[in-house]
Amino acid sequence: MKKTFAHLSIAAALVALSVPASAQFAKPEDAVKYRQSALSLMGTHLTRLGAMANGRVPFDAKVAADNAEVLATVSKLPWQAFGPGTDKVGNTKAKAEIWTEQAKFKDLADKMTAETAKLAAAAKTGNIDALKAAFGPTAGSCKACHDAYRAQ
Amino acid sequence: MKKTFAHLSIAAALVALSVPASAQFAKPEDAVKYRQSALSLMGTHLTRLGAMANGRVPFDAKVAADNAEVLATVSKLPWQAFGPGTDKVGNTKAKAEIWTEQAKFKDLADKMTAETAKLAAAAKTGNIDALKAAFGPTAGSCKACHDAYRAQ
Repeated sequence: MKKTFAHLSIAAALVALSVPASAQFAKPEDAVKYRQSALSLMGTHLTRLGAMANGRVPFDAKVAADNAEVLATVSKLPWQAFGPGTDKVGNTKAKAEIWTEQAKFKDLADKMTAETAKLAAAAKTGNIDALKAAFGPTAGSCKACHDAYRAQ
Repeated sequence: MKKTFAHLSIAAALVALSVPASAQFAKPEDAVKYRQSALSLMGTHLTRLGAMANGRVPFDAKVAADNAEVLATVSKLPWQAFGPGTDKVGNTKAKAEIWTEQAKFKDLADKMTAETAKLAAAAKTGNIDALKAAFGPTAGSCKACHDAYRAQ
C-alpha cells in the first residue's frame, strides 16, 4: 500500500481540501481506468440479469438479487470519474459531448442509477415477472447514454 | 443489448445448467477483464480509505462509509473469475500458483472479503479510530494475496 499512497502528491492533498474525497484521482488516466472498470462490471451484471429476464438461463432468485445489488452499487461509481481533464485521455470511447452537455449527461446518468435501484428492488422480491418488468427500462437507460455519449 | 446477448452460445447455455449463473463468462478473456476491473476498483477505494485513515486527507464519515461499502461489495466479485482456463489468458499478473494452490488462494480471498466487511462496519460507526483500526488488517489482507499470487 505504501507505494500506492506515495502517488498522492501534495497537489492532490490540496485538491482534497476543496472537493469531496470521492472525486479524487491522482491522474486523469486513473479516472478513465476507474470509470471503464465500473462500466465493464455493470455490463457483465446487466447481461447476467438479462439472460435470466429473457429466459436464456434458468431464473435463480438469489443470483438475480445478488447481481442486481452489485449493479445498483457499481452504477453509482463511474460518474465521478468524468471530471475536467479526463476528456483528454486516449483509449476511451467517451465522446467530447459529455463535457459540453454536462446537464444532459448527468440527467441520463441519474436516470440509469435510479433504474438500477428499481431493478435491485424488483429482484429482491424473488419474482421473475418483477425482474422482467424492471429489466427493460434499466437496459434502455444504459443504451440511451451509450447512444448519445459512447463512440462506436 | 441484443448484440451482447448474441455472444451467449449454446455451449454457454448448457454450462448454465450445471454452474451458478454468477460463475459464467462467455470467454476466459471476459473473466480476466472482469476480475481486473473489480480489483482495480478495490484498489481505488482502499487507497481513499487509507488516505483518511492515515490523515492524508480530512476524515469525512459519510465518504468513508460510502467507500468502505463499495469496497466490501466489490471485494466479493473477483474470485468467481479465476476459473479454469482463465490462467491461459495473457496480459495478467496472476501467478500460475493460483490454480495449483486453490485452497490457499481461496483462504486468502475469504480473509480479505471478511476484512472488508469489518472495515465497512467500522466505517459506518463514523468513528475515525474505528476506521484506523480496521484499515490495517484490510490492507494487510490485500497485500498477503498480492505477495503470494500477483507477479511484480
